[in-house]
Amino acid sequence: MPTAGDDIVIFDTIAIVGVGLIGGSLGMAAKKYGAANRVIGIGRSEQKLMRAKILGAIDDYSMDIENGAADADLIVICTPVCLIAPTLQRMAASIKPSAIVTDVGSTKSQVVREVEGTLPREVHFVGGHPMAGSEQAGVESASVDLFRGATYVFTTTDNTNLDALGKLTAMADAIGSNVEIMRTEDHDRAVAIISHLPHVISAALLEIAEQAQHESGMVFRLAAGSFRDLTRVSDSPPEIWRDICVTNSNALEHAISRLQESLEDFKAALKSGNKEAIARFFEQAGNIRSTYQRICK
Amino acid sequence: MPTAGDDIVIFDTIAIVGVGLIGGSLGMAAKKYGAANRVIGIGRSEQKLMRAKILGAIDDYSMDIENGAADADLIVICTPVCLIAPTLQRMAASIKPSAIVTDVGSTKSQVVREVEGTLPREVHFVGGHPMAGSEQAGVESASVDLFRGATYVFTTTDNTNLDALGKLTAMADAIGSNVEIMRTEDHDRAVAIISHLPHVISAALLEIAEQAQHESGMVFRLAAGSFRDLTRVSDSPPEIWRDICVTNSNALEHAISRLQESLEDFKAALKSGNKEAIARFFEQAGNIRSTYQRICK
Repeated sequence: MPTAGDDIVIFDTIAIVGVGLIGGSLGMAAKKYGAANRVIGIGRSEQKLMRAKILGAIDDYSMDIENGAADADLIVICTPVCLIAPTLQRMAASIKPSAIVTDVGSTKSQVVREVEGTLPREVHFVGGHPMAGSEQAGVESASVDLFRGATYVFTTTDNTNLDALGKLTAMADAIGSNVEIMRTEDHDRAVAIISHLPHVISAALLEIAEQAQHESGMVFRLAAGSFRDLTRVSDSPPEIWRDICVTNSNALEHAISRLQESLEDFKAALKSGNKEAIARFFEQAGNIRSTYQRICK
Repeated sequence: MPTAGDDIVIFDTIAIVGVGLIGGSLGMAAKKYGAANRVIGIGRSEQKLMRAKILGAIDDYSMDIENGAADADLIVICTPVCLIAPTLQRMAASIKPSAIVTDVGSTKSQVVREVEGTLPREVHFVGGHPMAGSEQAGVESASVDLFRGATYVFTTTDNTNLDALGKLTAMADAIGSNVEIMRTEDHDRAVAIISHLPHVISAALLEIAEQAQHESGMVFRLAAGSFRDLTRVSDSPPEIWRDICVTNSNALEHAISRLQESLEDFKAALKSGNKEAIARFFEQAGNIRSTYQRICK
Protein backbone atom coordinates (compact mmCIF):
# COMPACT_ATOMS: atom_id res chain seq x y z
CA MET A 1 0.00 0.00 0.00
CA PRO A 2 1.52 3.39 -0.98
CA THR A 3 2.17 5.77 1.87
CA ALA A 4 3.12 9.43 2.02
CA GLY A 5 6.21 10.09 -0.08
CA ASP A 6 5.79 7.18 -2.51
CA ASP A 7 5.84 8.00 -6.21
CA ILE A 8 2.74 6.08 -7.25
CA VAL A 9 0.01 8.55 -8.09
CA ILE A 10 -3.23 7.02 -9.30
CA PHE A 11 -4.99 10.18 -10.46
CA ASP A 12 -3.38 13.48 -11.38
CA THR A 13 -6.46 15.56 -10.49
CA ILE A 14 -9.46 14.50 -8.43
CA ALA A 15 -12.58 16.67 -8.25
CA ILE A 16 -14.77 16.16 -5.21
CA VAL A 17 -18.34 17.44 -5.54
CA GLY A 18 -19.78 18.05 -2.05
CA VAL A 19 -16.93 18.45 0.42
CA GLY A 20 -18.46 17.23 3.67
CA LEU A 21 -17.33 14.48 6.02
CA ILE A 22 -16.85 11.86 3.31
CA GLY A 23 -15.68 14.14 0.50
CA GLY A 24 -13.31 16.00 2.82
CA SER A 25 -11.85 12.83 4.28
CA LEU A 26 -11.40 11.42 0.79
CA GLY A 27 -9.51 14.56 -0.29
CA MET A 28 -7.21 14.42 2.74
CA ALA A 29 -6.56 10.70 2.33
CA ALA A 30 -6.03 10.85 -1.45
CA LYS A 31 -3.32 13.48 -0.97
CA LYS A 32 -1.64 11.89 2.03
CA TYR A 33 -1.56 8.38 0.61
CA GLY A 34 -0.49 9.39 -2.89
CA ALA A 35 -3.74 8.66 -4.73
CA ALA A 36 -3.84 12.17 -6.25
CA ASN A 37 -1.52 15.06 -7.05
CA ARG A 38 -4.24 17.64 -6.75
CA VAL A 39 -7.74 17.74 -5.26
CA ILE A 40 -10.35 20.29 -6.33
CA GLY A 41 -13.45 20.84 -4.21
CA ILE A 42 -16.70 21.75 -5.93
CA GLY A 43 -19.78 23.02 -4.13
CA ARG A 44 -22.27 25.84 -3.69
CA SER A 45 -21.03 27.46 -0.47
CA GLU A 46 -17.75 29.38 -0.72
CA GLN A 47 -17.53 29.49 3.06
CA LYS A 48 -17.63 25.69 3.33
CA LEU A 49 -15.15 25.26 0.48
CA MET A 50 -12.75 27.73 2.12
CA ARG A 51 -12.98 25.80 5.36
CA ALA A 52 -12.24 22.58 3.48
CA LYS A 53 -9.17 24.22 1.94
CA ILE A 54 -7.94 25.50 5.32
CA LEU A 55 -8.37 22.00 6.77
CA GLY A 56 -6.24 20.56 3.94
CA ALA A 57 -9.08 18.54 2.43
CA ILE A 58 -8.70 20.22 -0.98
CA ASP A 59 -6.01 22.23 -2.78
CA ASP A 60 -8.41 24.50 -4.60
CA TYR A 61 -12.09 24.96 -5.18
CA SER A 62 -14.74 26.07 -7.65
CA MET A 63 -18.40 26.99 -7.32
CA ASP A 64 -18.94 26.38 -11.02
CA ILE A 65 -20.78 23.06 -10.95
CA GLU A 66 -21.08 22.99 -14.78
CA ASN A 67 -17.36 23.39 -15.59
CA GLY A 68 -15.38 23.17 -12.35
CA ALA A 69 -14.36 19.55 -12.90
CA ALA A 70 -13.27 19.93 -16.53
CA ASP A 71 -9.64 19.07 -15.67
CA ALA A 72 -10.38 16.12 -13.42
CA ASP A 73 -9.26 12.57 -14.11
CA LEU A 74 -11.55 11.34 -11.36
CA ILE A 75 -14.79 12.97 -10.23
CA VAL A 76 -16.28 11.80 -6.94
CA ILE A 77 -19.90 12.85 -6.32
CA CYS A 78 -20.44 13.11 -2.56
CA THR A 79 -23.91 14.69 -2.56
CA PRO A 80 -26.98 13.11 -0.95
CA VAL A 81 -28.14 10.16 -3.00
CA CYS A 82 -31.07 11.94 -4.70
CA LEU A 83 -28.79 14.68 -6.08
CA ILE A 84 -26.17 12.41 -7.67
CA ALA A 85 -27.80 12.02 -11.10
CA PRO A 86 -29.07 15.64 -11.35
CA THR A 87 -25.60 16.94 -10.43
CA LEU A 88 -23.89 14.78 -13.04
CA GLN A 89 -26.43 15.89 -15.62
CA ARG A 90 -25.30 19.49 -15.10
CA MET A 91 -21.62 18.53 -15.30
CA ALA A 92 -21.85 16.03 -18.17
CA ALA A 93 -20.92 18.32 -21.08
CA SER A 94 -17.64 19.48 -19.51
CA ILE A 95 -16.29 16.16 -18.24
CA LYS A 96 -13.17 15.21 -20.17
CA PRO A 97 -13.23 12.00 -22.24
CA SER A 98 -11.68 9.02 -20.43
CA ALA A 99 -12.38 10.59 -17.03
CA ILE A 100 -13.68 8.27 -14.35
CA VAL A 101 -16.74 9.16 -12.28
CA THR A 102 -17.83 7.54 -9.03
CA ASP A 103 -20.21 8.40 -6.19
CA VAL A 104 -20.48 7.55 -2.48
CA GLY A 105 -24.24 6.98 -2.19
CA SER A 106 -25.71 4.33 0.10
CA THR A 107 -27.95 2.83 -2.61
CA LYS A 108 -26.78 2.00 -6.08
CA SER A 109 -29.23 0.46 -8.62
CA GLN A 110 -31.33 3.57 -9.21
CA VAL A 111 -28.32 5.93 -9.20
CA VAL A 112 -26.38 3.74 -11.63
CA ARG A 113 -29.38 3.42 -13.96
CA GLU A 114 -29.91 7.18 -14.02
CA VAL A 115 -26.22 8.06 -14.32
CA GLU A 116 -25.36 5.55 -17.04
CA GLY A 117 -27.99 7.19 -19.25
CA THR A 118 -26.64 10.68 -18.54
CA LEU A 119 -22.90 10.52 -19.15
CA PRO A 120 -21.06 10.53 -22.50
CA ARG A 121 -19.91 7.05 -23.58
CA GLU A 122 -16.19 7.83 -23.11
CA VAL A 123 -16.71 8.73 -19.45
CA HIS A 124 -16.59 5.68 -17.17
CA PHE A 125 -18.95 5.55 -14.21
CA VAL A 126 -18.48 3.04 -11.39
CA GLY A 127 -20.83 3.17 -8.38
CA GLY A 128 -19.09 3.36 -5.02
CA HIS A 129 -20.18 2.97 -1.40
CA PRO A 130 -17.54 3.61 1.25
CA MET A 131 -19.14 2.31 4.46
CA ALA A 132 -17.89 5.03 6.79
CA GLY A 133 -19.41 8.28 8.03
CA SER A 134 -22.58 9.76 6.57
CA GLU A 135 -23.41 12.09 3.71
CA GLN A 136 -24.52 14.89 5.97
CA ALA A 137 -21.92 15.63 8.63
CA GLY A 138 -19.61 18.54 7.80
CA VAL A 139 -15.99 18.79 6.71
CA GLU A 140 -15.05 19.78 10.28
CA SER A 141 -15.38 16.09 11.21
CA ALA A 142 -13.31 14.91 8.24
CA SER A 143 -10.31 12.71 8.98
CA VAL A 144 -7.49 11.39 6.84
CA ASP A 145 -8.10 7.95 8.33
CA LEU A 146 -11.90 7.77 8.02
CA PHE A 147 -11.61 4.92 5.51
CA ARG A 148 -8.85 2.98 7.24
CA GLY A 149 -10.20 -0.53 7.87
CA ALA A 150 -13.64 0.40 6.51
CA THR A 151 -15.35 -1.60 3.76
CA TYR A 152 -15.41 0.25 0.42
CA VAL A 153 -17.82 -1.35 -2.06
CA PHE A 154 -17.65 -0.77 -5.81
CA THR A 155 -20.63 -2.04 -7.79
CA THR A 156 -20.60 -3.49 -11.26
CA THR A 157 -23.05 -3.74 -14.13
CA ASP A 158 -22.67 -5.22 -17.63
CA ASN A 159 -21.29 -1.82 -18.70
CA THR A 160 -18.57 -1.48 -16.06
CA ASN A 161 -15.16 -0.54 -17.47
CA LEU A 162 -12.64 -2.81 -15.78
CA ASP A 163 -9.73 -0.39 -16.19
CA ALA A 164 -11.71 2.29 -14.35
CA LEU A 165 -12.68 -0.23 -11.68
CA GLY A 166 -9.02 -1.18 -11.28
CA LYS A 167 -7.93 2.43 -10.71
CA LEU A 168 -10.70 3.06 -8.19
CA THR A 169 -9.79 -0.14 -6.38
CA ALA A 170 -6.15 1.00 -6.23
CA MET A 171 -7.26 4.36 -4.78
CA ALA A 172 -9.53 2.76 -2.16
CA ASP A 173 -6.73 0.38 -1.28
CA ALA A 174 -4.23 3.23 -0.98
CA ILE A 175 -6.41 5.06 1.56
CA GLY A 176 -6.58 1.93 3.69
CA SER A 177 -10.06 0.59 3.07
CA ASN A 178 -11.08 -3.02 2.36
CA VAL A 179 -12.45 -3.18 -1.15
CA GLU A 180 -15.45 -5.38 -2.02
CA ILE A 181 -16.73 -5.65 -5.59
CA MET A 182 -20.37 -6.65 -6.01
CA ARG A 183 -23.10 -6.61 -8.63
CA THR A 184 -25.17 -3.47 -8.15
CA GLU A 185 -28.37 -5.36 -7.31
CA ASP A 186 -26.57 -7.70 -4.86
CA HIS A 187 -25.26 -4.64 -3.03
CA ASP A 188 -28.71 -3.15 -2.75
CA ARG A 189 -30.30 -6.36 -1.47
CA ALA A 190 -27.52 -6.78 1.11
CA VAL A 191 -27.65 -3.23 2.48
CA ALA A 192 -31.47 -3.38 2.54
CA ILE A 193 -31.18 -6.13 5.14
CA ILE A 194 -27.99 -5.17 6.94
CA SER A 195 -28.47 -1.41 7.12
CA HIS A 196 -31.80 -0.04 5.85
CA LEU A 197 -34.07 -2.57 7.57
CA PRO A 198 -32.47 -1.88 11.01
CA HIS A 199 -33.38 1.79 10.61
CA VAL A 200 -36.97 0.92 9.69
CA ILE A 201 -37.23 -1.48 12.63
CA SER A 202 -35.87 1.11 15.03
CA ALA A 203 -38.42 3.69 13.92
CA ALA A 204 -41.28 1.16 14.07
CA LEU A 205 -40.28 0.10 17.58
CA LEU A 206 -40.27 3.72 18.75
CA GLU A 207 -43.69 4.25 17.17
CA ILE A 208 -45.33 1.32 18.97
CA ALA A 209 -43.54 2.08 22.26
CA GLU A 210 -44.99 5.56 22.14
CA GLN A 211 -48.50 4.19 21.51
CA ALA A 212 -48.08 1.93 24.55
CA GLN A 213 -46.69 4.83 26.60
CA HIS A 214 -49.92 6.72 25.82
CA GLU A 215 -52.03 3.81 27.00
CA SER A 216 -50.28 2.98 30.28
CA GLY A 217 -48.04 6.00 30.91
CA MET A 218 -45.26 3.68 32.06
CA VAL A 219 -43.36 2.22 29.15
CA PHE A 220 -40.26 4.36 28.62
CA ARG A 221 -39.42 4.33 32.34
CA LEU A 222 -38.79 0.60 31.98
CA ALA A 223 -36.45 0.95 28.99
CA ALA A 224 -33.28 -1.05 29.51
CA GLY A 225 -30.21 -1.67 27.36
CA SER A 226 -31.98 -3.65 24.66
CA PHE A 227 -34.40 -0.83 23.83
CA ARG A 228 -31.61 1.72 23.81
CA ASP A 229 -29.51 -0.50 21.53
CA LEU A 230 -32.33 -1.08 19.06
CA THR A 231 -33.38 2.56 18.80
CA ARG A 232 -30.00 4.32 18.77
CA VAL A 233 -29.91 4.56 14.95
CA SER A 234 -33.04 6.71 14.97
CA ASP A 235 -30.77 9.65 15.81
CA SER A 236 -29.86 9.73 12.10
CA PRO A 237 -31.16 12.58 9.90
CA PRO A 238 -34.64 11.65 8.56
CA GLU A 239 -34.04 13.14 5.08
CA ILE A 240 -31.11 10.80 4.46
CA TRP A 241 -33.17 7.79 5.40
CA ARG A 242 -36.14 8.92 3.34
CA ASP A 243 -33.87 9.16 0.27
CA ILE A 244 -32.19 5.84 0.96
CA CYS A 245 -35.55 4.08 1.32
CA VAL A 246 -37.02 5.72 -1.77
CA THR A 247 -34.02 4.82 -3.93
CA ASN A 248 -33.92 1.23 -2.66
CA SER A 249 -37.62 0.56 -2.29
CA ASN A 250 -37.83 -2.82 -4.02
CA ALA A 251 -35.05 -4.44 -2.03
CA LEU A 252 -36.29 -2.86 1.19
CA GLU A 253 -39.89 -4.02 0.63
CA HIS A 254 -38.56 -7.51 0.11
CA ALA A 255 -36.47 -7.33 3.31
CA ILE A 256 -39.46 -6.09 5.33
CA SER A 257 -41.61 -8.93 4.00
CA ARG A 258 -39.00 -11.44 5.09
CA LEU A 259 -38.89 -9.94 8.56
CA GLN A 260 -42.68 -10.09 8.76
CA GLU A 261 -42.58 -13.78 7.82
CA SER A 262 -39.95 -14.53 10.46
CA LEU A 263 -42.06 -12.71 13.08
CA GLU A 264 -45.16 -14.62 11.94
CA ASP A 265 -43.37 -17.95 12.40
CA PHE A 266 -42.25 -16.95 15.88
CA LYS A 267 -45.77 -15.82 16.80
CA ALA A 268 -47.12 -19.19 15.69
CA ALA A 269 -44.59 -20.93 17.96
CA LEU A 270 -45.65 -18.68 20.86
CA LYS A 271 -49.37 -19.32 20.25
CA SER A 272 -48.89 -23.07 20.24
CA GLY A 273 -46.52 -22.96 23.23
CA ASN A 274 -43.78 -24.68 21.21
CA LYS A 275 -40.91 -24.25 23.69
CA GLU A 276 -38.41 -26.12 21.50
CA ALA A 277 -39.05 -23.86 18.49
CA ILE A 278 -38.78 -20.74 20.68
CA ALA A 279 -35.51 -21.86 22.25
CA ARG A 280 -34.13 -22.83 18.83
CA PHE A 281 -35.00 -19.40 17.43
CA PHE A 282 -32.91 -17.64 20.12
CA GLU A 283 -30.15 -20.24 20.06
CA GLN A 284 -29.70 -19.99 16.28
CA ALA A 285 -29.60 -16.21 16.54
CA GLY A 286 -26.79 -16.40 19.09
CA ASN A 287 -24.87 -18.81 16.85
CA ILE A 288 -25.33 -16.67 13.73
CA ARG A 289 -24.18 -13.63 15.65
CA SER A 290 -20.96 -15.21 16.86
CA THR A 291 -20.26 -16.58 13.37
CA TYR A 292 -20.74 -13.22 11.68
CA GLN A 293 -18.55 -11.54 14.28
CA ARG A 294 -15.78 -13.95 13.30
CA ILE A 295 -16.37 -13.27 9.58
CA CYS A 296 -16.20 -9.53 10.13
CA LYS A 297 -12.98 -9.44 12.11
CA MET B 1 -32.19 6.96 52.30
CA PRO B 2 -30.61 4.89 55.12
CA THR B 3 -26.90 4.27 54.78
CA ALA B 4 -24.50 1.95 56.59
CA GLY B 5 -24.65 2.54 60.33
CA ASP B 6 -28.25 3.80 60.44
CA ASP B 7 -30.52 2.04 62.88
CA ILE B 8 -33.49 1.49 60.55
CA VAL B 9 -33.75 -2.21 59.78
CA ILE B 10 -36.64 -3.19 57.55
CA PHE B 11 -36.41 -6.97 57.88
CA ASP B 12 -34.73 -8.95 60.63
CA THR B 13 -34.00 -11.97 58.43
CA ILE B 14 -34.06 -12.16 54.65
CA ALA B 15 -33.81 -15.51 52.84
CA ILE B 16 -32.55 -15.39 49.28
CA VAL B 17 -33.33 -18.43 47.17
CA GLY B 18 -30.85 -18.64 44.27
CA VAL B 19 -27.77 -16.62 45.15
CA GLY B 20 -26.49 -15.53 41.73
CA LEU B 21 -25.81 -12.04 40.41
CA ILE B 22 -29.15 -10.58 41.50
CA GLY B 23 -29.62 -12.57 44.71
CA GLY B 24 -26.01 -12.00 45.75
CA SER B 25 -26.13 -8.27 45.05
CA LEU B 26 -29.41 -8.00 46.94
CA GLY B 27 -27.85 -9.72 49.96
CA MET B 28 -24.82 -7.44 49.94
CA ALA B 29 -26.93 -4.31 49.50
CA ALA B 30 -29.54 -5.28 52.11
CA LYS B 31 -26.80 -5.70 54.72
CA LYS B 32 -24.79 -2.62 53.79
CA TYR B 33 -27.77 -0.28 53.58
CA GLY B 34 -29.49 -1.57 56.71
CA ALA B 35 -32.43 -3.33 55.07
CA ALA B 36 -31.72 -6.59 56.96
CA ASN B 37 -29.93 -7.82 60.08
CA ARG B 38 -29.26 -11.23 58.63
CA VAL B 39 -29.28 -12.77 55.16
CA ILE B 40 -29.61 -16.51 54.59
CA GLY B 41 -28.78 -17.99 51.19
CA ILE B 42 -30.72 -21.01 49.99
CA GLY B 43 -29.72 -23.15 47.03
CA ARG B 44 -28.72 -26.57 45.77
CA SER B 45 -24.96 -26.18 45.38
CA GLU B 46 -22.95 -25.94 48.62
CA GLN B 47 -19.93 -24.74 46.64
CA LYS B 48 -21.84 -21.76 45.23
CA LEU B 49 -23.37 -20.93 48.61
CA MET B 50 -19.93 -21.03 50.27
CA ARG B 51 -18.61 -18.67 47.62
CA ALA B 52 -21.53 -16.32 48.26
CA LYS B 53 -20.73 -16.39 52.01
CA ILE B 54 -17.04 -15.69 51.41
CA LEU B 55 -18.01 -12.75 49.16
CA GLY B 56 -20.19 -11.33 51.94
CA ALA B 57 -23.45 -11.75 50.01
CA ILE B 58 -25.00 -13.90 52.75
CA ASP B 59 -24.34 -14.54 56.47
CA ASP B 60 -25.31 -18.19 56.41
CA TYR B 61 -26.79 -20.77 54.07
CA SER B 62 -28.99 -23.81 53.79
CA MET B 63 -29.51 -26.45 51.14
CA ASP B 64 -32.85 -27.41 52.65
CA ILE B 65 -35.26 -25.81 50.18
CA GLU B 66 -38.31 -27.09 52.12
CA ASN B 67 -37.41 -25.61 55.52
CA GLY B 68 -34.37 -23.36 55.10
CA ALA B 69 -36.42 -20.14 55.06
CA ALA B 70 -38.59 -20.96 58.08
CA ASP B 71 -37.14 -18.04 60.07
CA ALA B 72 -37.28 -15.46 57.32
CA ASP B 73 -39.37 -12.28 57.46
CA LEU B 74 -38.75 -11.75 53.75
CA ILE B 75 -38.12 -14.45 51.15
CA VAL B 76 -36.77 -13.36 47.77
CA ILE B 77 -37.00 -15.96 45.01
CA CYS B 78 -34.18 -15.32 42.52
CA THR B 79 -34.52 -18.46 40.38
CA PRO B 80 -35.22 -18.43 36.63
CA VAL B 81 -38.81 -17.41 36.02
CA CYS B 82 -40.14 -20.93 35.32
CA LEU B 83 -38.89 -22.21 38.69
CA ILE B 84 -40.43 -19.51 40.89
CA ALA B 85 -43.83 -21.15 41.48
CA PRO B 86 -42.49 -24.74 41.79
CA THR B 87 -39.86 -23.54 44.31
CA LEU B 88 -42.44 -21.73 46.43
CA GLN B 89 -44.69 -24.78 46.32
CA ARG B 90 -41.93 -26.80 48.00
CA MET B 91 -41.33 -24.09 50.61
CA ALA B 92 -44.96 -23.15 51.30
CA ALA B 93 -45.60 -25.32 54.38
CA SER B 94 -42.64 -23.94 56.35
CA ILE B 95 -43.00 -20.21 55.62
CA LYS B 96 -43.91 -18.35 58.78
CA PRO B 97 -47.26 -16.52 58.93
CA SER B 98 -46.97 -12.80 58.11
CA ALA B 99 -43.75 -13.36 56.15
CA ILE B 100 -43.43 -11.46 52.88
CA VAL B 101 -42.43 -13.18 49.64
CA THR B 102 -41.22 -11.55 46.45
CA ASP B 103 -39.43 -12.65 43.29
CA VAL B 104 -37.16 -11.00 40.70
CA GLY B 105 -38.57 -12.55 37.51
CA SER B 106 -38.80 -10.60 34.25
CA THR B 107 -42.45 -11.51 33.64
CA LYS B 108 -45.14 -11.28 36.27
CA SER B 109 -48.75 -12.21 35.39
CA GLN B 110 -48.25 -15.95 35.09
CA VAL B 111 -45.91 -16.12 38.12
CA VAL B 112 -48.26 -14.10 40.29
CA ARG B 113 -51.25 -16.21 39.24
CA GLU B 114 -49.43 -19.45 40.05
CA VAL B 115 -47.91 -18.20 43.31
CA GLU B 116 -51.04 -16.61 44.72
CA GLY B 117 -52.74 -20.00 44.50
CA THR B 118 -49.83 -21.76 46.21
CA LEU B 119 -49.06 -19.75 49.35
CA PRO B 120 -50.96 -19.78 52.66
CA ARG B 121 -53.28 -16.76 53.08
CA GLU B 122 -51.21 -15.19 55.86
CA VAL B 123 -48.12 -15.04 53.66
CA HIS B 124 -48.01 -11.90 51.49
CA PHE B 125 -46.66 -12.19 47.97
CA VAL B 126 -45.71 -9.13 45.90
CA GLY B 127 -44.17 -9.60 42.45
CA GLY B 128 -40.88 -7.75 41.91
CA HIS B 129 -38.73 -6.94 38.89
CA PRO B 130 -35.44 -5.18 39.56
CA MET B 131 -34.26 -4.07 36.11
CA ALA B 132 -30.56 -4.79 36.57
CA GLY B 133 -28.39 -7.77 35.71
CA SER B 134 -29.79 -11.11 34.59
CA GLU B 135 -30.99 -14.25 36.34
CA GLN B 136 -28.12 -16.35 35.10
CA ALA B 137 -24.79 -14.67 35.80
CA GLY B 138 -23.03 -15.92 38.94
CA VAL B 139 -22.48 -14.46 42.39
CA GLU B 140 -18.88 -13.61 41.37
CA SER B 141 -20.30 -10.66 39.43
CA ALA B 142 -22.49 -9.50 42.34
CA SER B 143 -22.07 -5.92 43.50
CA VAL B 144 -23.45 -3.98 46.46
CA ASP B 145 -24.40 -1.19 44.03
CA LEU B 146 -26.06 -3.24 41.28
CA PHE B 147 -29.43 -1.63 42.04
CA ARG B 148 -28.21 1.91 42.53
CA GLY B 149 -30.11 4.10 40.05
CA ALA B 150 -31.85 1.07 38.49
CA THR B 151 -35.63 0.84 38.16
CA TYR B 152 -37.18 -1.65 40.59
CA VAL B 153 -40.78 -2.51 39.70
CA PHE B 154 -43.26 -4.00 42.16
CA THR B 155 -46.48 -5.27 40.64
CA THR B 156 -49.92 -5.19 42.20
CA THR B 157 -53.11 -7.22 41.91
CA ASP B 158 -56.45 -6.93 43.75
CA ASN B 159 -54.92 -9.14 46.46
CA THR B 160 -51.78 -7.09 47.12
CA ASN B 161 -51.14 -6.37 50.81
CA LEU B 162 -50.20 -2.71 51.03
CA ASP B 163 -48.17 -3.11 54.23
CA ALA B 164 -46.00 -5.73 52.51
CA LEU B 165 -45.69 -3.48 49.46
CA GLY B 166 -44.61 -0.61 51.71
CA LYS B 167 -41.84 -2.63 53.35
CA LEU B 168 -40.54 -3.87 50.00
CA THR B 169 -40.59 -0.34 48.64
CA ALA B 170 -38.59 0.81 51.66
CA MET B 171 -36.04 -1.93 51.04
CA ALA B 172 -35.71 -1.14 47.31
CA ASP B 173 -35.39 2.51 48.22
CA ALA B 174 -32.71 1.76 50.83
CA ILE B 175 -30.55 -0.08 48.29
CA GLY B 176 -30.68 2.91 45.96
CA SER B 177 -33.12 1.86 43.25
CA ASN B 178 -35.97 3.87 41.76
CA VAL B 179 -39.22 2.17 42.68
CA GLU B 180 -42.13 1.94 40.23
CA ILE B 181 -45.43 0.36 41.20
CA MET B 182 -47.58 -0.99 38.39
CA ARG B 183 -50.51 -3.34 37.84
CA THR B 184 -49.14 -6.77 36.97
CA GLU B 185 -50.67 -6.81 33.48
CA ASP B 186 -49.45 -3.25 32.70
CA HIS B 187 -45.91 -4.33 33.61
CA ASP B 188 -46.10 -7.32 31.29
CA ARG B 189 -47.44 -5.31 28.36
CA ALA B 190 -44.75 -2.67 28.86
CA VAL B 191 -41.80 -5.08 29.07
CA ALA B 192 -43.19 -7.04 26.10
CA ILE B 193 -42.60 -3.94 23.97
CA ILE B 194 -39.59 -2.39 25.66
CA SER B 195 -37.55 -5.52 26.35
CA HIS B 196 -38.96 -8.81 24.98
CA LEU B 197 -39.84 -7.56 21.49
CA PRO B 198 -36.30 -6.16 20.95
CA HIS B 199 -34.91 -9.64 21.61
CA VAL B 200 -37.34 -11.21 19.15
CA ILE B 201 -36.52 -8.58 16.51
CA SER B 202 -32.80 -9.10 16.96
CA ALA B 203 -33.13 -12.86 16.47
CA ALA B 204 -35.41 -12.42 13.44
CA LEU B 205 -32.97 -9.97 11.85
CA LEU B 206 -30.10 -12.40 12.30
CA GLU B 207 -32.21 -15.17 10.78
CA ILE B 208 -33.02 -13.25 7.60
CA ALA B 209 -29.49 -11.85 7.29
CA GLU B 210 -28.17 -15.39 7.33
CA GLN B 211 -30.63 -16.43 4.62
CA ALA B 212 -29.42 -13.51 2.49
CA GLN B 213 -25.79 -14.37 3.25
CA HIS B 214 -26.48 -17.86 1.84
CA GLU B 215 -27.93 -16.40 -1.33
CA SER B 216 -25.28 -13.79 -2.15
CA GLY B 217 -22.35 -14.69 0.11
CA MET B 218 -21.78 -11.02 0.83
CA VAL B 219 -24.12 -9.73 3.51
CA PHE B 220 -22.26 -9.86 6.80
CA ARG B 221 -19.15 -8.22 5.28
CA LEU B 222 -21.26 -5.09 4.83
CA ALA B 223 -22.50 -5.01 8.43
CA ALA B 224 -22.10 -1.56 9.94
CA GLY B 225 -22.98 -0.05 13.31
CA SER B 226 -26.76 -0.31 12.90
CA PHE B 227 -26.69 -4.09 12.41
CA ARG B 228 -24.31 -4.55 15.33
CA ASP B 229 -26.53 -2.38 17.56
CA LEU B 230 -29.70 -4.23 16.65
CA THR B 231 -28.27 -7.72 17.13
CA ARG B 232 -26.13 -7.24 20.25
CA VAL B 233 -28.87 -8.55 22.60
CA SER B 234 -28.78 -11.94 20.87
CA ASP B 235 -25.74 -12.73 23.01
CA SER B 236 -28.17 -13.41 25.88
CA PRO B 237 -28.74 -17.02 27.05
CA PRO B 238 -31.50 -18.61 24.89
CA GLU B 239 -33.11 -20.50 27.81
CA ILE B 240 -33.84 -17.28 29.67
CA TRP B 241 -35.50 -15.78 26.63
CA ARG B 242 -37.48 -18.93 25.92
CA ASP B 243 -38.87 -18.81 29.47
CA ILE B 244 -39.59 -15.09 29.33
CA CYS B 245 -41.46 -15.46 26.02
CA VAL B 246 -43.43 -18.48 27.20
CA THR B 247 -44.50 -16.79 30.43
CA ASN B 248 -45.48 -13.56 28.66
CA SER B 249 -46.85 -14.98 25.44
CA ASN B 250 -50.10 -13.00 25.21
CA ALA B 251 -48.49 -9.59 25.68
CA LEU B 252 -45.62 -10.51 23.37
CA GLU B 253 -47.95 -11.77 20.62
CA HIS B 254 -49.79 -8.49 20.84
CA ALA B 255 -46.53 -6.50 20.64
CA ILE B 256 -45.37 -8.49 17.60
CA SER B 257 -48.70 -7.86 15.86
CA ARG B 258 -48.32 -4.15 16.44
CA LEU B 259 -44.82 -4.18 14.99
CA GLN B 260 -46.09 -6.10 11.95
CA GLU B 261 -48.79 -3.46 11.43
CA SER B 262 -46.29 -0.63 11.67
CA LEU B 263 -44.04 -2.40 9.14
CA GLU B 264 -47.04 -2.97 6.87
CA ASP B 265 -47.89 0.76 6.92
CA PHE B 266 -44.31 1.65 6.09
CA LYS B 267 -44.23 -0.87 3.24
CA ALA B 268 -47.39 0.67 1.81
CA ALA B 269 -45.75 4.12 1.89
CA LEU B 270 -42.70 2.68 0.10
CA LYS B 271 -44.81 0.94 -2.55
CA SER B 272 -46.72 4.12 -3.35
CA GLY B 273 -43.55 6.26 -3.22
CA ASN B 274 -45.08 8.46 -0.51
CA LYS B 275 -41.96 10.48 0.37
CA GLU B 276 -43.76 12.63 2.94
CA ALA B 277 -45.03 9.60 4.88
CA ILE B 278 -41.57 8.01 4.79
CA ALA B 279 -39.83 11.15 6.02
CA ARG B 280 -42.48 11.62 8.75
CA PHE B 281 -41.95 8.03 9.94
CA PHE B 282 -38.22 8.64 10.52
CA GLU B 283 -38.71 12.16 11.84
CA GLN B 284 -41.27 11.05 14.43
CA ALA B 285 -38.96 8.24 15.52
CA GLY B 286 -36.15 10.72 16.12
CA ASN B 287 -38.48 12.96 18.12
CA ILE B 288 -39.84 10.09 20.22
CA ARG B 289 -36.30 8.94 20.93
CA SER B 290 -35.13 12.31 22.19
CA THR B 291 -38.27 12.68 24.31
CA TYR B 292 -37.87 9.29 25.94
CA GLN B 293 -34.20 9.99 26.63
CA ARG B 294 -35.29 13.08 28.53
CA ILE B 295 -37.95 11.09 30.44
CA CYS B 296 -35.41 8.46 31.41
CA LYS B 297 -32.75 10.79 32.71
